[in-house]
Amino acid sequence: MTMKEDIAIRARQIDEIIMRMMPDITGPQKTIYEVMEYTMRAGGKRLRPMLMLETYKMFGGTSKVIEPFMAAIEMIHTYSLIHDDLPCMDDDDYRRGKKTAHVVYGEAMALLAGDALLNYAFETASNAFTYEEHLKDAAKALKILAKKAGVFGMLGGQVVDVEMEGQPLSLDEIEFIHKKKTAALIEASMMIGAILAGASEEQVQTIKEISRKVGVAFQIQDDILDVIGSEEELGKPIGSDEKNQKTTYVSLMGIDQAKAEVEELSEEAKSQLSLFIGEDKFLMDLITYLIDRDN
Amino acid sequence: MTMKEDIAIRARQIDEIIMRMMPDITGPQKTIYEVMEYTMRAGGKRLRPMLMLETYKMFGGTSKVIEPFMAAIEMIHTYSLIHDDLPCMDDDDYRRGKKTAHVVYGEAMALLAGDALLNYAFETASNAFTYEEHLKDAAKALKILAKKAGVFGMLGGQVVDVEMEGQPLSLDEIEFIHKKKTAALIEASMMIGAILAGASEEQVQTIKEISRKVGVAFQIQDDILDVIGSEEELGKPIGSDEKNQKTTYVSLMGIDQAKAEVEELSEEAKSQLSLFIGEDKFLMDLITYLIDRDN
Repeated sequence: MTMKEDIAIRARQIDEIIMRMMPDITGPQKTIYEVMEYTMRAGGKRLRPMLMLETYKMFGGTSKVIEPFMAAIEMIHTYSLIHDDLPCMDDDDYRRGKKTAHVVYGEAMALLAGDALLNYAFETASNAFTYEEHLKDAAKALKILAKKAGVFGMLGGQVVDVEMEGQPLSLDEIEFIHKKKTAALIEASMMIGAILAGASEEQVQTIKEISRKVGVAFQIQDDILDVIGSEEELGKPIGSDEKNQKTTYVSLMGIDQAKAEVEELSEEAKSQLSLFIGEDKFLMDLITYLIDRDN
Repeated sequence: MTMKEDIAIRARQIDEIIMRMMPDITGPQKTIYEVMEYTMRAGGKRLRPMLMLETYKMFGGTSKVIEPFMAAIEMIHTYSLIHDDLPCMDDDDYRRGKKTAHVVYGEAMALLAGDALLNYAFETASNAFTYEEHLKDAAKALKILAKKAGVFGMLGGQVVDVEMEGQPLSLDEIEFIHKKKTAALIEASMMIGAILAGASEEQVQTIKEISRKVGVAFQIQDDILDVIGSEEELGKPIGSDEKNQKTTYVSLMGIDQAKAEVEELSEEAKSQLSLFIGEDKFLMDLITYLIDRDN
């Protein structure tokens, strides 16, 4: 079995967990469930819940307290895509080859579905509080989730991305956007996995460093693939960043320096992670795959 | 001092608490703080945090654990207004006589500011977890906050409101929208106040019933005022519902039946509340004022 196949199988197992946590809406507002479900099912490799679960297992976690948070992080990721695709933002009609929510259901309903998923992420995460023996850790995890998704995390990155649109970016600004817009939810995923498994404060900090490097490397790799990847493989026109005159790490530093940066971040992250990795090497392989991927 | 003056003074005290809880953003994403602050400062009577605080005090609450939740409920209320005002929703350029967020900062930034306030509401509420002796109650309160703001609460009402726009509504549909869109956050406010003060399960349930009646009566009164109020007093053109051909409780049942319904809900709510009210009658006066208000 290739790594790609292994990830796909695990992603389907995660799908089952996540979709079980979706709300059961039968009232007059049931349309919103359709939109939420449509976007949640619209593919995706479930990388964030996968990283969360694997980090949780690595630190010896065995309870189902992780499941509400696995669903929550994917809901937050999905809401951010719905809102990013809206006409007032990137105005994208397609994502992963499927029509975006506002194209199918209209702008108002897409807006509300994004709101609904963000809100339901916290509603779902708060279900973890029923595991009373994990209450303190679940409370800590929810706080991390909110922080990393919010103005000091993902949303902060989106703000700068939106505000600087069409303008050349400095390296500092690009790094800020990478750390926030992309890396923050990866950080949340792995930190929450560690916290819920009862990892020490110091271990959680190391996981934070590792996950930030993974997130930034993942984003630079994305920018590299935008330049060299093929349209078919990525499901979006190649060179779309260039076409949109978007400054990326690659356009600023050149492709060789970008590759070297990915390599360095990747080596650092994996070397730090090797201290924790036990018999199950999947998390290490997953991170290698994410960073080295060619599509 | 009139009730109106008393409420205004207390609202300013609540402002201090709330604005202290706003994020301190100095990074490249600081524009988002401007938008968040602009909308949070754009007036408002702070009724939800006021109801929360007064219910909390009524059940003997004395800790500052209530403060993060007071801020959170107002952030959620404010985010819902920002998104409601967007062009793809109600497309309102003014609210309470001030330009709406998207008019001042553009649609993308208004969208993100709404997202940011919703997210920051949970980030703020999760700060209550630092009061370890209240951890269990704070966890319960956060769950209620998420539920009442989400698809089974306020958002559920907005969905039906949006979906039925321009179509005649049945009484059931109107009642659904009232209970969700308006009453759900009032319920959350008073229930959270009760929960954090350590009220019993049964008491919280009674508070839920009371607050739902208050919320629905408040909304019907709003519809009545839309018909009979003066433009100057309400700050919006009178009869705007009629102009928009919006079905309301008043248009469906007639003004006399609407007034009778407000009266009945109000009497029931106050009679239930009288069981809990002690020396401090402010909560009772506040509810009377809210329901009987003429602007």
